[in-house]
Amino acid sequence: MVPTGTLLVEAARRAGVEIAQPCGGQGRCGRCAVQVTAGTVRRRSALRLSAEDVAAGYALACQTVVEGDVRIAVPPQEKIERRLTTDRTAVEVQVPAGYDPARVQPIRRVTLTTTPPSLEDQTDDWSRIQKALRQHARLAETHISLMQLRRLGHILRRGDWQITVVLDAEAWDCPHCPVRLIELKRGLVSEDAPLWGVAIDIGTTTVSLWLVDLLTGRVHAQVAEYNAQIARGEDVISRIIYSGKGSGGEELRDLVLGTIKGLVEEVCRRVQIAPTEIMKATIAGNSTMIHLLLGIPARSIRLMPFVTAVNHIPTLTAHEVGLAIHPDATVDCLPGVASYVGADITAGVLSSGLDDTELVTLFIDVGTNGEIVLGNKDWLVTVAASAGPAFEGSGVQHGMRATKGAIEEVWVNGDTYEPTYRVIGGVKPRGLCGSGLISLLAEMFLTGVVDKGGHINTNLPTPRVRTGDHGPEYVVCWAADSAEGHDIVVTNVDIDNLIRTKAAIYAGFTVLAQSVGLSLDAVEQVLVGGSFGKYINVEKAIQIGLLPDMPWDRFQFLGNTSIKGAYLALLDRRARNRIKEIASRMTYIELSADNTFYEAFTSALFLPHTDLSRFPTVQAAMGAKNGKA
Amino acid sequence: MVPTGTLLVEAARRAGVEIAQPCGGQGRCGRCAVQVTAGTVRRRSALRLSAEDVAAGYALACQTVVEGDVRIAVPPQEKIERRLTTDRTAVEVQVPAGYDPARVQPIRRVTLTTTPPSLEDQTDDWSRIQKALRQHARLAETHISLMQLRRLGHILRRGDWQITVVLDAEAWDCPHCPVRLIELKRGLVSEDAPLWGVAIDIGTTTVSLWLVDLLTGRVHAQVAEYNAQIARGEDVISRIIYSGKGSGGEELRDLVLGTIKGLVEEVCRRVQIAPTEIMKATIAGNSTMIHLLLGIPARSIRLMPFVTAVNHIPTLTAHEVGLAIHPDATVDCLPGVASYVGADITAGVLSSGLDDTELVTLFIDVGTNGEIVLGNKDWLVTVAASAGPAFEGSGVQHGMRATKGAIEEVWVNGDTYEPTYRVIGGVKPRGLCGSGLISLLAEMFLTGVVDKGGHINTNLPTPRVRTGDHGPEYVVCWAADSAEGHDIVVTNVDIDNLIRTKAAIYAGFTVLAQSVGLSLDAVEQVLVGGSFGKYINVEKAIQIGLLPDMPWDRFQFLGNTSIKGAYLALLDRRARNRIKEIASRMTYIELSADNTFYEAFTSALFLPHTDLSRFPTVQAAMGAKNGKA
Repeated sequence: MVPTGTLLVEAARRAGVEIAQPCGGQGRCGRCAVQVTAGTVRRRSALRLSAEDVAAGYALACQTVVEGDVRIAVPPQEKIERRLTTDRTAVEVQVPAGYDPARVQPIRRVTLTTTPPSLEDQTDDWSRIQKALRQHARLAETHISLMQLRRLGHILRRGDWQITVVLDAEAWDCPHCPVRLIELKRGLVSEDAPLWGVAIDIGTTTVSLWLVDLLTGRVHAQVAEYNAQIARGEDVISRIIYSGKGSGGEELRDLVLGTIKGLVEEVCRRVQIAPTEIMKATIAGNSTMIHLLLGIPARSIRLMPFVTAVNHIPTLTAHEVGLAIHPDATVDCLPGVASYVGADITAGVLSSGLDDTELVTLFIDVGTNGEIVLGNKDWLVTVAASAGPAFEGSGVQHGMRATKGAIEEVWVNGDTYEPTYRVIGGVKPRGLCGSGLISLLAEMFLTGVVDKGGHINTNLPTPRVRTGDHGPEYVVCWAADSAEGHDIVVTNVDIDNLIRTKAAIYAGFTVLAQSVGLSLDAVEQVLVGGSFGKYINVEKAIQIGLLPDMPWDRFQFLGNTSIKGAYLALLDRRARNRIKEIASRMTYIELSADNTFYEAFTSALFLPHTDLSRFPTVQAAMGAKNGKA
Repeated sequence: MVPTGTLLVEAARRAGVEIAQPCGGQGRCGRCAVQVTAGTVRRRSALRLSAEDVAAGYALACQTVVEGDVRIAVPPQEKIERRLTTDRTAVEVQVPAGYDPARVQPIRRVTLTTTPPSLEDQTDDWSRIQKALRQHARLAETHISLMQLRRLGHILRRGDWQITVVLDAEAWDCPHCPVRLIELKRGLVSEDAPLWGVAIDIGTTTVSLWLVDLLTGRVHAQVAEYNAQIARGEDVISRIIYSGKGSGGEELRDLVLGTIKGLVEEVCRRVQIAPTEIMKATIAGNSTMIHLLLGIPARSIRLMPFVTAVNHIPTLTAHEVGLAIHPDATVDCLPGVASYVGADITAGVLSSGLDDTELVTLFIDVGTNGEIVLGNKDWLVTVAASAGPAFEGSGVQHGMRATKGAIEEVWVNGDTYEPTYRVIGGVKPRGLCGSGLISLLAEMFLTGVVDKGGHINTNLPTPRVRTGDHGPEYVVCWAADSAEGHDIVVTNVDIDNLIRTKAAIYAGFTVLAQSVGLSLDAVEQVLVGGSFGKYINVEKAIQIGLLPDMPWDRFQFLGNTSIKGAYLALLDRRARNRIKEIASRMTYIELSADNTFYEAFTSALFLPHTDLSRFPTVQAAMGAKNGKA
């Protein structure tokens, strides 16, 4: 029973049925359509439905309210794979050479043997510990939480006045630096026992977590999982909108905390420890993800003039954040630069070494957004190209994320226009992921299936090219060969989306280079972050004009640079400070306030670009294909 | 329905009936007796019940478990008066001369007018505020809680980029001192609007609270209420025992927080503000009360060698403590010295001026415990005489607290042995409060109703002296004149209790004086704190040997010195620091480790004392009475 006026998504949720809202409940994506089989509803919007759909009883669950008893049929919801395949998220990681926790690690474990109290020495328990700590090291007054004060007496007595404490001290032998007690354990814990911390990267799509022994720097487990917020919006804008509705903010916060909890439990299971053994978390993520994690309203990120509530988050405890690790664990959210250049990028700049190189370097993190940094050890400029999630499979009719069943690479025969493809997991295809779309578009372009304007040539002698409901389209996979039971196609509308996305990113490069008076040719290396980047075929990405045309050996694919940065900051206070410096050194260029951007964007709305001289290798390849044809 | 084995107190509570447990459920006081009228119970202890009582079905509710369906009759429970009479708790208070909040008050309100963000200035909200604060004063980095960060964006925009913040800054223009943001308000709050704080004294019996405008120092409201924990134990030992049983600690914590909440609501009602307008609380109280308030186990306070978990409580927030004021309000629990010399005494030493006087001064806080300090500006020694609560009316058959119906002063006619008395509220008497008991005992002694050993003379020609169930007794009030419908008596057992109590206190004086090589004659002034002290008749207190025999003008009765100290510390950081100094300067003498105490105690187990030469005025009065008789 729900009141009249309840949204169908809410009514369904109360009945235990979750309906995905990829656009965050804005009525834009049309993917929450359900069929009303009995009863009356009121549609606030049916923008994404045809008259036939509405006649058949279809309604958008996020835009339709009940007006009495209703019966609805909910189509099978897009399943989110329970766990990402490990090979797509694992990152090779080496402990920084010469890692010396005593010098650089803020978290330290200290064992103390105290004298028991007596009628001659009635010092209170906490003063007794503080005195022992002062004898151990020249430390400022140590702060203890009420929670730990409540445990202190029992632990001291149970451990026969021997105790192990875990401290977070910005520096030792520094009488001014604050020291905070995290944990009390009875008895003397072995010096070799691991001291656990986690590095977390909260991506819009994927949350990654590494379990690290802070004493050795070794990563004991790497796990990743889809951000459970996806069901409430696939991109940051949808999430921000969703978070502003009713208890949407709390819901999104709970969802991502739930994802992290699951990951923490998984790594703890692997090494057989309790989550409360984890004493520190360092978190990277874009500004929206960090705001939503902390329950800070993200509205201003979306609205002119696009400012965050906070870029430099104060140090928090797990209890305050709601993280399911030791409640007094230090939680360090890394600092961001702006609404669309967050801590994922500052962490990525650190781990990629961009802030420390002599070479003029272009750093790209292609994820749900396209953040770009140009610079070297002397200067750093950055933009966020609101690329949209086309390369993550969203906004494309048969797009999907890079999971089992996604076509990840395509080759088109220049004579027959017949495609061949590779599918993740080697199964029947379900759709096309980002790398598959890039590869497909490049092949279609080079074989003349689309022209430089992105138009599909409908005059080709192949049944693969045809006109469908949404105009011209190319059939990548016939229904008989697909796992979905229908043809998998790419439409001209999809191609327009992809071209706008790649144009935004390329225009970002152009604006950055212009802002420092350089041409793109001056770039000496290109570092590509993001797990997506790992699977891009550089040649094809250049062919569609997504990446600048330069020798392949100037490209390096670094995988998830954000979590690598979080890992380095977790280990080493100097790395942490370097990220802070990076955040303050980076000059952010707001594209919506920049006239040159629109010009650069328009010029890039072609395959590969209006100015073909910028893409000499593509020009050559076109010549070769054409010559052959 | 409760499981077999449930205590009757618990079973009754689940049925909505609260049974008072004055001894904390130890089975010692016998006041939780109920009558089992049907069903089977098992008595763990019936120590306080006679064979006849047990035969009649009586059982101690705190010591008896159900063994099936039972029916019990619960006698009317001792009512705790809803509110203390104002004249007994109100304290005259003057704002310290020359109070200058700008120099001494750590809490400050600052109004800021900021520039709105634009595409040219995308500074995040929190950096914008911090920048404005730095321009306002040379401040260290300001710490903000997650709770306030969540509100910041909305408040800035609603207030059109004008904002008022409340800060807790140990010092201004100090780039190293920590600054903490407590509150954000939209718009510019008027400079004259009060800035609210509360001073709280948590007594074992009474909780007092003052509402103070931190800008003027003026006390706008004073309220007091019985500590709701009383129903779970009348003295600290009973409370500690209760707190160690099951969820007893949480229950006691909730009870005192509930009492404080009621007081906060009352003062807020009077000045028409919301509790969240209160930005700071300074709390005094004995060590047990502070531990119980904070949920810190108090067990070690009671057990050899009697140490607290913590004497110097770190600064907390109201949210952490659970106080119903502004969640980010600073909560400063004043420091104590030892298990039985707590923050109530350090605060009392401050407010009485003991730590600042040239005169050798004896400071006594006679409350549920008897804490004594001897000293001056150069030295301070202290003891806690475990006096017991006899002077609060507990452990005395017809004893009661000093509320309506309590006999507060008694005169006994030396010829007829007939008493006359004064009753609080001018009503029919219900019992005897502390000052009444002192006065009665002195009169009985001087008229020969009791001898110097405390024995009632049963050979007197008066029906007032008789032998009752508990041996010899004196009838103060016949049943017909009493509000209770029975005779109000003082028994020889009561008198023994009173004498032990006064002897413990007097022995404390002696030990303190001896510890610094002085005689009690060297004492130049006696300061008596505690609201009880306000109503003591000095002459009579000297006559029973409770106070040392010296000219009355050396005595000063200061009322609740503890809350006065909390008030001064609330206003002025220098007063706060002085209390810290007092706590570390005080030398605590543990009486249970002191041989001289037992000797002094034994000598004092007489009226007024073994050594009559110590009480020349009493000797004279005895002569006069005897002469007259």
